[in-house]
Amino acid sequence: MSESAAADPLAAEAVLAANEAFYAAVEAGDLDALRAVWSDAEGSVCVHPGTAPIHGTPAVLRSWALVMASTDYIQFFLTDVAVTVADGVAAVTCTENVLTSTGAGAGGQAAEAPFRGGRARAVNAFTRVDGRWRMWLHQASPVGSDLL
Amino acid sequence: MSESAAADPLAAEAVLAANEAFYAAVEAGDLDALRAVWSDAEGSVCVHPGTAPIHGTPAVLRSWALVMASTDYIQFFLTDVAVTVADGVAAVTCTENVLTSTGAGAGGQAAEAPFRGGRARAVNAFTRVDGRWRMWLHQASPVGSDLL
Repeated sequence: MSESAAADPLAAEAVLAANEAFYAAVEAGDLDALRAVWSDAEGSVCVHPGTAPIHGTPAVLRSWALVMASTDYIQFFLTDVAVTVADGVAAVTCTENVLTSTGAGAGGQAAEAPFRGGRARAVNAFTRVDGRWRMWLHQASPVGSDLL
Repeated sequence: MSESAAADPLAAEAVLAANEAFYAAVEAGDLDALRAVWSDAEGSVCVHPGTAPIHGTPAVLRSWALVMASTDYIQFFLTDVAVTVADGVAAVTCTENVLTSTGAGAGGQAAEAPFRGGRARAVNAFTRVDGRWRMWLHQASPVGSDLL
């Protein structure tokens, strides 16, 4: 945790709670909860690993709807979580350790459910809107496992 | 360019100018110019491709000093540039097409100067400080060439 976060622990706590709400919404496949996390501002940006940036919250939410619709199971184990707070903006950086399953496999047998693991370096930026921190930018960078 | 940028073309222009100043400073190896681009706020964050986030402008500038010291030549060709402006924050997304040379090679012969190309998806976020847009977050995600 940075000095600026330490200087304003309540803001840092609120930002971390918003960050957790983001991942919880994706894990639950809850688009309404995800919409509540993201800023309504037109300037929001989302970069999924290895893809082009998506601009604007409506398009960003559609991209997450696609992610959630195409995964039976997704769970994020966050490590290296750090939060910084500046004037009205805040950023959480973390390593996303992602466990996913896209279904029971071609044979339809539960025993073959193909769980997969992945990692990404994420930065989540928030702005304070009406006293509440809302996500304005999410970028997840793919990483080589040897780089972590 | 997003609708929000179109709604405030002067702000969008100023943000794009700050973005260009950032890349020009790195290309010129000018640490003072780079310092002028970055926010003084403690909460700044920089994620180079495939590496851990760096927190705080002093550490961020040191990382760029290392990049500049270890490259004889670096040039950025930016494509897919888009800018969005919200309340006091702005983001520029772009593809960095990077041409670098780390020197004349082991043999010291100019003819063998090993130029290399690379690409990254970058998001540069800015906050407005005393009427000036300053960089607060830079993240460059590595991309597979087949994903662009």
